[in-house]
Amino acid sequence: MTKVGIIGGTGYAGGELARILSVHPDVEIAAMTSRQNAGKKVQESHSYLKGYVDLEFISNISEAPDLDLVFVATPHGVAMKEVPALLERGIKAIDLSGDYRLHDVATYQKWYGHEHTDVENLQKAVYGLPEFFRGEIKGADLVANPGCYATSIILACGPILKSGLAGDDVIVDAKSGTSGAGMVPTERTHHSTCGESVIPYSIGKHRHTPEIEMAVDRFAGSHSKVTFVPNLVPIVRGIISSCYFGLEKDVSQEEIDSIYEKQYGNETFVHYVPDPSIRAVVASNHAQVSSRVLGSKAVAFGVVDNLVKGASGQAVQCMNLMLGLDEKAGLDFPGLGV
Amino acid sequence: MTKVGIIGGTGYAGGELARILSVHPDVEIAAMTSRQNAGKKVQESHSYLKGYVDLEFISNISEAPDLDLVFVATPHGVAMKEVPALLERGIKAIDLSGDYRLHDVATYQKWYGHEHTDVENLQKAVYGLPEFFRGEIKGADLVANPGCYATSIILACGPILKSGLAGDDVIVDAKSGTSGAGMVPTERTHHSTCGESVIPYSIGKHRHTPEIEMAVDRFAGSHSKVTFVPNLVPIVRGIISSCYFGLEKDVSQEEIDSIYEKQYGNETFVHYVPDPSIRAVVASNHAQVSSRVLGSKAVAFGVVDNLVKGASGQAVQCMNLMLGLDEKAGLDFPGLGV
Amino acid sequence: MTKVGIIGGTGYAGGELARILSVHPDVEIAAMTSRQNAGKKVQESHSYLKGYVDLEFISNISEAPDLDLVFVATPHGVAMKEVPALLERGIKAIDLSGDYRLHDVATYQKWYGHEHTDVENLQKAVYGLPEFFRGEIKGADLVANPGCYATSIILACGPILKSGLAGDDVIVDAKSGTSGAGMVPTERTHHSTCGESVIPYSIGKHRHTPEIEMAVDRFAGSHSKVTFVPNLVPIVRGIISSCYFGLEKDVSQEEIDSIYEKQYGNETFVHYVPDPSIRAVVASNHAQVSSRVLGSKAVAFGVVDNLVKGASGQAVQCMNLMLGLDEKAGLDFPGLGV
Amino acid sequence: MTKVGIIGGTGYAGGELARILSVHPDVEIAAMTSRQNAGKKVQESHSYLKGYVDLEFISNISEAPDLDLVFVATPHGVAMKEVPALLERGIKAIDLSGDYRLHDVATYQKWYGHEHTDVENLQKAVYGLPEFFRGEIKGADLVANPGCYATSIILACGPILKSGLAGDDVIVDAKSGTSGAGMVPTERTHHSTCGESVIPYSIGKHRHTPEIEMAVDRFAGSHSKVTFVPNLVPIVRGIISSCYFGLEKDVSQEEIDSIYEKQYGNETFVHYVPDPSIRAVVASNHAQVSSRVLGSKAVAFGVVDNLVKGASGQAVQCMNLMLGLDEKAGLDFPGLGV
Repeated sequence: MTKVGIIGGTGYAGGELARILSVHPDVEIAAMTSRQNAGKKVQESHSYLKGYVDLEFISNISEAPDLDLVFVATPHGVAMKEVPALLERGIKAIDLSGDYRLHDVATYQKWYGHEHTDVENLQKAVYGLPEFFRGEIKGADLVANPGCYATSIILACGPILKSGLAGDDVIVDAKSGTSGAGMVPTERTHHSTCGESVIPYSIGKHRHTPEIEMAVDRFAGSHSKVTFVPNLVPIVRGIISSCYFGLEKDVSQEEIDSIYEKQYGNETFVHYVPDPSIRAVVASNHAQVSSRVLGSKAVAFGVVDNLVKGASGQAVQCMNLMLGLDEKAGLDFPGLGV
Repeated sequence: MTKVGIIGGTGYAGGELARILSVHPDVEIAAMTSRQNAGKKVQESHSYLKGYVDLEFISNISEAPDLDLVFVATPHGVAMKEVPALLERGIKAIDLSGDYRLHDVATYQKWYGHEHTDVENLQKAVYGLPEFFRGEIKGADLVANPGCYATSIILACGPILKSGLAGDDVIVDAKSGTSGAGMVPTERTHHSTCGESVIPYSIGKHRHTPEIEMAVDRFAGSHSKVTFVPNLVPIVRGIISSCYFGLEKDVSQEEIDSIYEKQYGNETFVHYVPDPSIRAVVASNHAQVSSRVLGSKAVAFGVVDNLVKGASGQAVQCMNLMLGLDEKAGLDFPGLGV
Repeated sequence: MTKVGIIGGTGYAGGELARILSVHPDVEIAAMTSRQNAGKKVQESHSYLKGYVDLEFISNISEAPDLDLVFVATPHGVAMKEVPALLERGIKAIDLSGDYRLHDVATYQKWYGHEHTDVENLQKAVYGLPEFFRGEIKGADLVANPGCYATSIILACGPILKSGLAGDDVIVDAKSGTSGAGMVPTERTHHSTCGESVIPYSIGKHRHTPEIEMAVDRFAGSHSKVTFVPNLVPIVRGIISSCYFGLEKDVSQEEIDSIYEKQYGNETFVHYVPDPSIRAVVASNHAQVSSRVLGSKAVAFGVVDNLVKGASGQAVQCMNLMLGLDEKAGLDFPGLGV
Repeated sequence: MTKVGIIGGTGYAGGELARILSVHPDVEIAAMTSRQNAGKKVQESHSYLKGYVDLEFISNISEAPDLDLVFVATPHGVAMKEVPALLERGIKAIDLSGDYRLHDVATYQKWYGHEHTDVENLQKAVYGLPEFFRGEIKGADLVANPGCYATSIILACGPILKSGLAGDDVIVDAKSGTSGAGMVPTERTHHSTCGESVIPYSIGKHRHTPEIEMAVDRFAGSHSKVTFVPNLVPIVRGIISSCYFGLEKDVSQEEIDSIYEKQYGNETFVHYVPDPSIRAVVASNHAQVSSRVLGSKAVAFGVVDNLVKGASGQAVQCMNLMLGLDEKAGLDFPGLGV
C-alpha cells in the first residue's frame, strides 16, 4: 500500500486530509507532523479520527521512512522550505499553500511580500486543478493545490472565458464560510464579530487574485482582469463565488448552458446545475457551477466545500492522478444535501 | 398628540413600526389592524411589546377615528386598495410595500404582474428616501417607502453616479438577512435550507430593480442600468449591498471619498466609513456607506438594518418630515455594534 | 446484490438514506417513492445525488418488484399502513417514524393521539438501537428505528442507569439542530424565528419521552422517570442531550468512566470521550458520549448527527444486521470534525 | 448633568455602556479609558457610536475630573485595584466584573484562584440586582453588578425557591450567546468551532455558581445547592437558563404562575410569560421568565440579553437608583422581537 505523509496535521486542511485518507482504499497515512502536538496521539486533537487514525504526531517529516508522497498543509512560506528535501528523497509532494502556485517569481514577491527561496521547483510545479490540467498533474512530482476561492472561481469562469462570448474583465464577489480562514482565532472569525454579519475583506488585495488570473489565462488562452472581493459569511463550510461578465454580443441562455455542459458533462466532480447549492456539495469533493444570462451581462456561480474540493479533497484527487490510481478513489460519495 | 395607525400589525414591518412608535415622543399608536389576530391583544403575538403597546388588533382601519397618519405594512397589492380611502378621509399615508414606488404604470404591471388600481395616487406618491428627496417628502400626503434592498443600493450608488465619475452600468451583488423575506415560512427561509448556506435568488428578476433604476436616475440625472443579484444569507437582520462600477477615467480614492463625504457629511443617519459593518447599524435607523477604488473599477457598499432604515425606521423618518416633527424624533440612538 | 426501497424519498430522512445507500458496497437502491414528486428524477429534488442515484420517484412501493428490504421514512401514522403489505410480500422493513417504537398500544394512543391500526406487528417490532439490542435486530423482520433525541439520550443514560449508581429520576435538557424537525417549513423553523435564538418546545410533552423510558427500562432493568425538555438551536445538523442524575452514593469520576468504557469500548460507532463535540460526529454514524461527576449529581452527554446515527445511518446499521452484512458496511468513515 | 466615566471602554460591556449612556437623558459620558486605544477617538474602534460619543479614550480614569460615578468594565482582578481610589475621590462605582460579588473572601479565593486585595470594600459592596435588592442599591456607593448567567438564573429561580414549593437542589442548564465571552478571540468562540455546535464548558466549575447560590440564599432565605452547566450556542446576544427543581408536594401550574406574577407583576423590566423568547428581549433591558410544572418537577426559564440586562443595561439601572434618577431612565424601550 502506498504510504503518504502530512506536514501540518493539526490545522484544518491537515485534519481534513487525514479524514479523507483514513478511509482511502489504496493509501495508508504513515506520518503526520505537528510542531505543537508532537508526541501526542492524533485523536487527542482530532477526536473525530478516533478509530481511524492511530498515530502520534511527529515533529519532522524527515523522521518518517519510506514515504511515497507528502502533503504540505502549512501556512504560506513553510512549504518552500520543506519541498526541496522531499523531492531530493524522491518523494512526490502536493503543497496546499500558496508557495508554488504562481510561476512568476516577481508576482509571488509582490503579492506575498517576501522572497521565494525555491525558484527552481516553483518553475516545475503543476497547478493542481484536475478538470483543466489533468494531463500535467499525472506526470508531476510537485503539485501546487489551488486555493479554495480560486477553485470555485476558475471552475465558474473558465468555460465562458474560453468560449470568447464574455469579455475578459471579470468582477468576482465571493462568499466564504469561516473554516476557509483556518484554525487560528482572529478578531474577524470571532463569532460575535462574524456570526450575524457579512464582512467584505482584503478588498482588491486578496492573494488568490493573481492565481485566478494566471489559471484562467492558461486555460482560456487570453488575458483576463479579475476584480475580486471576498466576503466572510457566517457558515462553517462552503464557498459560493458570483462572477459577473459583460457579454460580447447577444447570447442565449441555451448557448451558455451548452458551453458549460460540454466542459463538465463528463466530469465526476463538477456539475452544471440550474440552482447552485452550497449544502449540495458540503462534505464532498463535488462542485456545482451555474450560469445565467442577464441581458448584456452574465453571472456564473461556482460552489465548493472550501475544505474538500477547495483544499484537501482536491489534493487527494491530484494524488490519485500522480500515483496512477483511480481519480475518484476515496472521494466518490455525494455531498450532504441538508 | 398625533395619532397614527398601522395596517398590517402582525407582520415584521408592522411590529417594528409599533416597537419604534411606542417610545416616540410625539405620536401615539391609536390603532393596529390584523386580519388573523383581530380582537387579540397586540402583546399576545408580540410579547416584546408588553408594557409598551396596550391595544387590541382591529380588523379594519376604518374602525379607528381621528387618525392623522397611517402606515400600510401589507404585502404588495393591498395598499392600493387601502390608500384611496385614507386620503379621502384626510389621513396621510406611508406605504411600506411596492404599490406606490414606480411612477410608471406599465413598469409596475411588467414587474408585479397585475394591474394597478389606483393610478391617480401612484402619480402623486413621493419616494420616501429622505437623504435624497427630503423636500418633497415634507409636503407629501402619500409616501412610498423604499424597499430594503433599494435603500441600501441607492445610498451606495447615488453619489458616485451623480458625480459622473462612474459609468451608469452597475452590477449589484446584495446580501440580505432572512427577516427581509417577511414572517411567512417558506422553503428558502426554512433554517435547514438557509442556515448554513448563501442562496442567490430572483436572479435578474427582483422587483427592486426598476425601483433602484428609477430612484438613481432621478437623483443622478442619468439613465443607469442595474444588474441586480440578491442573496439570502443566514443572519436575521441586516443587508450589505456591494455595487460595482467601471470608472470613466483615473480616479483617486481621495476623490471618491470626498464625493461621499460631501453627500453624507451632514446627515444624521448615513455615515461614510472605511469598513462597513452590519452590526454597527443593526437595531437602528443608521446606514453605513463605503467605497473603494479598485484600479479601473470601484465598489461601493451600502449597509442597513432591513427592518429599520430598510423599512419601518425610514417610514418613521418620513412621518417625522410629513408631520413637521424633528426628523430624528424617536430614531436618535446608535446601532448595536455587537 | 440486495435490492432495497425507500418509502418517502423526498424528505430529509429519505434523502439521507439515498445518500448513504448510493455508495453502500452491498445493496442497490431499487426504488424510491414520493407522492409529490412521482415521475420526476430523484436528482431534480436532490441535486446532491446527481451521479449517484439514477432513478425516478414512483408513487407506490407496490410498483417495485423483487425488493429485499424497505425503509419507511414517512410522517407518523403512515408506516402502519405500509408495513403489513411489505411483510406479507416477504420484504423486511425498517420504520424510521414512531409507529412501531412503543410496544404498549395504550401508551401509543396516549402520546400520538390516535389508534394504532397494526397492533399485531407492533408487538413483534424490534427497537433498532444496535449497541443495546444487536441480537434481536439480527433476527428481525421489522425494526422500529429509534428517534433522534431518543438515540442520543439512551446512549448517554443507559450505562449509568444500568450500573445502579444513579437514581432513576433523570432530567434531560436536549438541544437539536433544525433538520430534526424535517423539511416542512414552520413558524418555529423559520430562520428569522430560530436563527438567533434557543427555543424550548413540547415541554414535558415530546413523544420521545415514553420511547426513552421504555428503552432505558428494558436495557437497565429498572423503571426510570424521564423529564424531557427539548430545545431548538440554530444549527442544521446535530443533537447534544444533557442528562442529569442524582448519585445514590459517593462515586468517583474513575468509576463512572470505567462503566462507560466497559459499555462502549468495543463499539465502532459510540465513543466515550472527555469533551463531547457535535462537529466530531456530524455527517457520520458516530456518536460521542461523555459523563461528569458533579458532587452528588452527574451529567451525561449524548451527541449524534440527528440525520445519521439519529435516523438514516442507524437504519442502515440495522439493515446490515438484518441482512447478515458487516454491521459497518457503508458507514465506516469519520465525522467532519470541522 | 451628572458626569460618568467608563473604565474599560474597548470591551463589549464598555461599548454597550457607551451605547446606552450616550442617549441617556440625565447623564453625560465624560471619560472612557482604554489601555490599548488611549489617544484614539472612541468612534474609531466603535463605528456605531459615530455621532453619539465624541471623545478620545484616555489611559487612566484619574485624568478625568469631576466624575460622579464610574463603571468598571474590565476583566476580573482589575476592579479591585481601581475601586479604592474612586471611592476615596468620592466617586460612586459600579463594577461589572466578579471582583465584588462574593462577600466571603475565602469563597472568592477558592473560585477565582487569587487573593482579594480590597477586602474592606468587598464587605460593603451591594449586589446590583434591582428587582431583589432595590433598597440597598439606592444607598450604595459601590455596586457589584451581577453576572449575565447569574441574572438570568436568579430571576428564574428566586420566586419558586422563596415560595418553599421547590426543593433547594437546583439543576441549571444555561445557553449563552458568544458575546458573553467577551471580545477576545479564543478557540471556543472561533466561528468554525462554535458556529454549528453547542458546547458545554466549565462544567461544574463556572464562577457564577457561588454568586447564584449566594444571591438566591439571601433572597430566598434558604440554603440552595446549584448544579450549573453553561453551554455556548451560536447566537451573538442572549441567554436562556433552564432551571430544574423537584417539587416538595403536588403543585398546580396556577400556583406557580401566581407566585411569579406576584413577584414580577409590578416590575418594568421582568415579565412572566408563557413562552420565553430570546429575541423578545434582545437589545433591551427586559427579561422574560417562564415556568412549567412537569409532574413532580418544575422547570423555570430566565431569558436576558447578556450585554444589557445581563451587564450594561442592569448597571445603568443600578446607576439610576444610586443617583436618585428614574429607575427606567435611558432604558425604557422594548426588545427587538425579530
